Amino acid sequence: MAKVTPRTLSGFMELLPGDQLKMERMKDLLRESFASYGFTPLDTPVIESAEVLLAKGGGETEKQIYRFAKGDSDLALRFDLTVPLAKYVAAHYAELSFPFRRYQIGKVYRGERAQRGRFREFYQADIDVIGDGKLDILNEAEIPAVICDIFRRLGVTRFQIRVNNRKLLNGFYAMNGMSEKAGEIMRAVDKLDKIGAEAVRQSLINDVKMLPCKAENVMDFMAICGTNDEVLAALERYRGMDATFDEGLDELKCVVGNLAAFGVPEENFAVDLTIARGLDYYTGTVYETLMLDHPEIGSVCSGGRYDNLAEFYTDRQLPGVGISIGLTRFFYVLSEQGLLNDALPAAPCDALLLPMTEDLSYAVAAAAELRRAGLRVQLYAEKKKFKAKMSYADRIGVPFTVFVGEDEIRENVLSVKDMRSGEQRKLPAGEAAALIRAEVEKGLGAPVIKE
Amino acid sequence: MAKVTPRTLSGFMELLPGDQLKMERMKDLLRESFASYGFTPLDTPVIESAEVLLAKGGGETEKQIYRFAKGDSDLALRFDLTVPLAKYVAAHYAELSFPFRRYQIGKVYRGERAQRGRFREFYQADIDVIGDGKLDILNEAEIPAVICDIFRRLGVTRFQIRVNNRKLLNGFYAMNGMSEKAGEIMRAVDKLDKIGAEAVRQSLINDVKMLPCKAENVMDFMAICGTNDEVLAALERYRGMDATFDEGLDELKCVVGNLAAFGVPEENFAVDLTIARGLDYYTGTVYETLMLDHPEIGSVCSGGRYDNLAEFYTDRQLPGVGISIGLTRFFYVLSEQGLLNDALPAAPCDALLLPMTEDLSYAVAAAAELRRAGLRVQLYAEKKKFKAKMSYADRIGVPFTVFVGEDEIRENVLSVKDMRSGEQRKLPAGEAAALIRAEVEKGLGAPVIKE
Repeated sequence: MAKVTPRTLSGFMELLPGDQLKMERMKDLLRESFASYGFTPLDTPVIESAEVLLAKGGGETEKQIYRFAKGDSDLALRFDLTVPLAKYVAAHYAELSFPFRRYQIGKVYRGERAQRGRFREFYQADIDVIGDGKLDILNEAEIPAVICDIFRRLGVTRFQIRVNNRKLLNGFYAMNGMSEKAGEIMRAVDKLDKIGAEAVRQSLINDVKMLPCKAENVMDFMAICGTNDEVLAALERYRGMDATFDEGLDELKCVVGNLAAFGVPEENFAVDLTIARGLDYYTGTVYETLMLDHPEIGSVCSGGRYDNLAEFYTDRQLPGVGISIGLTRFFYVLSEQGLLNDALPAAPCDALLLPMTEDLSYAVAAAAELRRAGLRVQLYAEKKKFKAKMSYADRIGVPFTVFVGEDEIRENVLSVKDMRSGEQRKLPAGEAAALIRAEVEKGLGAPVIKE
Repeated sequence: MAKVTPRTLSGFMELLPGDQLKMERMKDLLRESFASYGFTPLDTPVIESAEVLLAKGGGETEKQIYRFAKGDSDLALRFDLTVPLAKYVAAHYAELSFPFRRYQIGKVYRGERAQRGRFREFYQADIDVIGDGKLDILNEAEIPAVICDIFRRLGVTRFQIRVNNRKLLNGFYAMNGMSEKAGEIMRAVDKLDKIGAEAVRQSLINDVKMLPCKAENVMDFMAICGTNDEVLAALERYRGMDATFDEGLDELKCVVGNLAAFGVPEENFAVDLTIARGLDYYTGTVYETLMLDHPEIGSVCSGGRYDNLAEFYTDRQLPGVGISIGLTRFFYVLSEQGLLNDALPAAPCDALLLPMTEDLSYAVAAAAELRRAGLRVQLYAEKKKFKAKMSYADRIGVPFTVFVGEDEIRENVLSVKDMRSGEQRKLPAGEAAALIRAEVEKGLGAPVIKE
């Protein structure tokens, strides 16, 4: 029979079992973290009506989207989790209670040009808090605590949450009569890390056509840095010149002022006035998260406050704040850079049980008992030579093998072999389970990411 | 601005938060169950090359599939998890170890005519064990243990795993010279439950054109029932007439003979010679699972042994055994019939923390402390009247509210209110956490399904 070559499309991540277990562990830790802050899981369809999904319309998004007809329906695959959330909240408004806090970890689709590290199908992990009409600033202040919790659970301590406030920026541009050029200025300032201060100043003068003294004002503002207290003190000098600026400063002070109570260490947080996160969506606090030893990865967790989640579906004002992790790309980069912890369990089971007798009932019962003790147990009954069985155990990387032969059945014990140390002991099933479990728990406690 | 009506496509399940938590709990329990038997999680793309996905070609499947072009690519959405598994195993053969045991819980797509209880996007939860060339019968014998474990975890005891063996059927038809009519006979027998024995006999005679004595032989065979021992004894009377039959009988005896060691109670298991599960795929043991009090749902967990997983991709013989749960439909039916347990936690958090003072730092720190104790805590800081806050607590169904006012701060305690009993107590944070945790654990221990 003619065969079709089995292949996976480029731009689609498909992991081998060991890596998949690491990815699952990351998803579990994210779920735990999100849930501990009172976010509830949602699961929306991958396919939506194109009319609904593209209500906002236009732009790069529409070109990248997977859109197709089925019967009379014009369908599209979701390209993010925000538009489906907007649809969900607008459609189920009457059945939800606000503030509505949800998390969603799901696949999204963008038919980008395939290149290394770019994915066409990728997981996003999003949280959002949606208010009905209003949403208290404390929700924005809490986001750094969630980010901090996520990265700690993943095993990372060398990260920095960088925060700004769009009202501060908009107020600053207004007080300097630059509001009309705000978009251009933000685009120029966004290159600060890449091209340096002097090149940005020249760009403000030559490209944005600003007077040198105005450009200087911008550069002075963006250069404000130091401890949180120093930055806030420097910003206080601008107070009183613009109401939006003052509002932004009060919000930023609330965010910074609650960090200690939320348990966010100062070294994991910095106010960074150069961050804007796009031009037309965010309206208050904005967030980026850098891994300090790997700034080249860019922000691995970003988001902000917005005023109007679902304006394309409803007249209701639904402000919110949210962050998103591009999980597939993050995992890919971690893997490429060798930052995934090999100490994490990568085997499909904790113990491989090898029956050595014709009658399997003792071995079968032993497997059942180990499972009842909470272990993941594979019963291996293939008719192979001993060497082949041990080679299988090595290849799947199982930490323990358990032998059941005539001796073990007679003595009512199990022979447990630690595959790393090579040590082998005869133990009653209960003790065998406890021994294996203690080792397994060490592995589960290992951080996902190596620093 | 003109609004687009926010709607979800028909045939696509989108749950409200309380139900979604129940669904997540079901998925978690399935994952735990699969993992405890040494199945490793896989995650394959939703989109595949149409050429790869439709390698088998033909039939109803091709009409229902979501297929579309993107650039030069002819793409399709997966319609089950078996074809992607076949592709995965064939593509990654050299990197895998056999037997390869994987589970996958994922969405699949079928553009069926929309009707009540039919879904176009639905979760399947599959496990498969794939051998390289050979696969020991004990893998088939273990499947009832996995099914039993799944339903016990879900809270169901009144279920029955019905098992047959295709070699028994094929051997029986061969020994009666009916092999050519086997397909037609199986289709007629499949209606036994619906139309009764007499109508099936008539159908065998009139439609399948069998001699009355031959039809009688079939009806006698299909009528074999009783305890496992009685059924096996009755089948022994056919031994020696056909080699395939004898092989099937030995396999069935291995499956039945290990039930007790695997911990599968006899009342949860029955040999049922009328089960065939499709005509051209399964080759050994086949499985169906009925909820005894709800036979109208049909089989909720089915599968079997097959000889050739990936014949469209590779010349390698890759036999396997697997089962599949149509999770979305199962959840839908349970929900419709009121069988989902309302005692399961449905709130987004375990405790809603309500600050009653201007300075929020004590409340924020208290929330952080409760979270460190493993609780899901929502901090509610909206500027609302007390009544509105309590109404929110009621609507989200949170089991505990925690108040932090001047008194609590001075006394360094939290006021914890049990929302069901109405009882309110002042406790230090550690004791508050322990009290709430004890209640939460009761909820987590509640079965998902009510019997």
